[in-house]
Amino acid sequence: MTKPPSHTPKDSHFARLRRAHRDTSPAPEKADDDTVRLYGLHTVRAALDNPKRRIRRLLATRNALQRLEIDEGAKAAYPLDIVEPRALDRLVGEDAVHQGVVAEVEALTPLRLEALGDARLVLVLDQVTDPHNVGAILRSAVAFGAQALVTASRHSPSESGVLAKAASGALEHIALIEVRNLAEALETLAAQGFQTVGLDSEGPAVLEKTLAGDRLALVLGAEGKGLRQKTRETVNTLARLDMPGAIKSLNVSNAAAIALYAARRHLDGGA
Amino acid sequence: MTKPPSHTPKDSHFARLRRAHRDTSPAPEKADDDTVRLYGLHTVRAALDNPKRRIRRLLATRNALQRLEIDEGAKAAYPLDIVEPRALDRLVGEDAVHQGVVAEVEALTPLRLEALGDARLVLVLDQVTDPHNVGAILRSAVAFGAQALVTASRHSPSESGVLAKAASGALEHIALIEVRNLAEALETLAAQGFQTVGLDSEGPAVLEKTLAGDRLALVLGAEGKGLRQKTRETVNTLARLDMPGAIKSLNVSNAAAIALYAARRHLDGGA
Repeated sequence: MTKPPSHTPKDSHFARLRRAHRDTSPAPEKADDDTVRLYGLHTVRAALDNPKRRIRRLLATRNALQRLEIDEGAKAAYPLDIVEPRALDRLVGEDAVHQGVVAEVEALTPLRLEALGDARLVLVLDQVTDPHNVGAILRSAVAFGAQALVTASRHSPSESGVLAKAASGALEHIALIEVRNLAEALETLAAQGFQTVGLDSEGPAVLEKTLAGDRLALVLGAEGKGLRQKTRETVNTLARLDMPGAIKSLNVSNAAAIALYAARRHLDGGA
Repeated sequence: MTKPPSHTPKDSHFARLRRAHRDTSPAPEKADDDTVRLYGLHTVRAALDNPKRRIRRLLATRNALQRLEIDEGAKAAYPLDIVEPRALDRLVGEDAVHQGVVAEVEALTPLRLEALGDARLVLVLDQVTDPHNVGAILRSAVAFGAQALVTASRHSPSESGVLAKAASGALEHIALIEVRNLAEALETLAAQGFQTVGLDSEGPAVLEKTLAGDRLALVLGAEGKGLRQKTRETVNTLARLDMPGAIKSLNVSNAAAIALYAARRHLDGGA
């Protein structure tokens, strides 16, 4: 997971240019502060099925309603607008594959570490915020039965349509926990019997030989930057994925998927 | 890897709208037909280091040149233009994180199946074309020592700046093989001693217990569609990744990463 950082101070010039351009481009309509616009059939279906999710409004084409198997006439707990696709383009932007449906929902309330309960597998992200990556990570996390995603509140990925779409429904199936101090949270996890394992390309041992115990917390850092020094010092152990090829780093969501797969095998006694 | 298809005929209306919008937006300048514009420090560095890569022109800021450790005065096999960042924005689009460098290169010539040589691990893609996913897949493929990527020429991902950036240099380290008929290619691979394993969420056995022999060809289909019927019928075996959670599908590059990791462990005798 080590490669030359792609966002050094030297890039800020380009970042500024891009921002300046974006700011003058026609942007999707703004939602209220705590309203998130979820889109896509799969993602919206999962939100509707989540009893903890507050739906404020559903906007859909007739076609999409049918595919969601929602009866137009039935009483629903939220207002339902039948709209033309164009109206959805305006809401979420033309690049969003909304498939004819947008749900305006309340952002999920981040939970506290106490919400972990008897979770056996959790994922901790150290400043990973790219919504595509975080979405794909959530999807793999849920697929392999991780019960929570822990992030530091100051560097949390914000819930958004893009993130939710990449998560393909997974957002509704996992506890999102925000903590003020990631190092303290790792210590708390360790005290609760979690082995806290930081993924690090320079880790002394390979991941699958490092996993121990019956509660695991996998810790991943951002691409390029990796884990912060304080995080590296706090985890129980640093582990690497063995990569014999010419490339020694993976996309962060790919690294997370492999780590989750290996952790699942360990917990199920298969590794 | 099964989920409701996200690109059904019903989406074509939105696709048309998006295309119409795109076609009127200011687009990056066009390159010659077989010229690919690679950008980003890592990606361009890998291209410059690849003796098989023909470089037509390098455009870079002074800053980027320094970071690439290229001496402005030294003789190079290609024209070198020192430019302002803005000029690169125009070439590759403002959303491309070019980090001050663009290399105009000849597209790599696709190889034939005979080029496999004594490869032990290859990846076969059945209509996976999204450049972000294919790029991430190439990166994992090279990291885990896969020697070739096999695709059908009619459904090949086209080499592009986006794909190369997501591959983070991996494009220069793997044989790209295009075949006319994927099923025939799978039969040829099997005849050469490869176990051809199709990833399929309904596969009868879990992947890590399915892998056998010392040559492996992993076959992955597109998200939503999965493997085509003909492909399913042709592979030696269909295998699934066990996912105990509420989500039963992964992003295709995440699925590929796990399959490659498991295959590598098998070939190295560790699984």
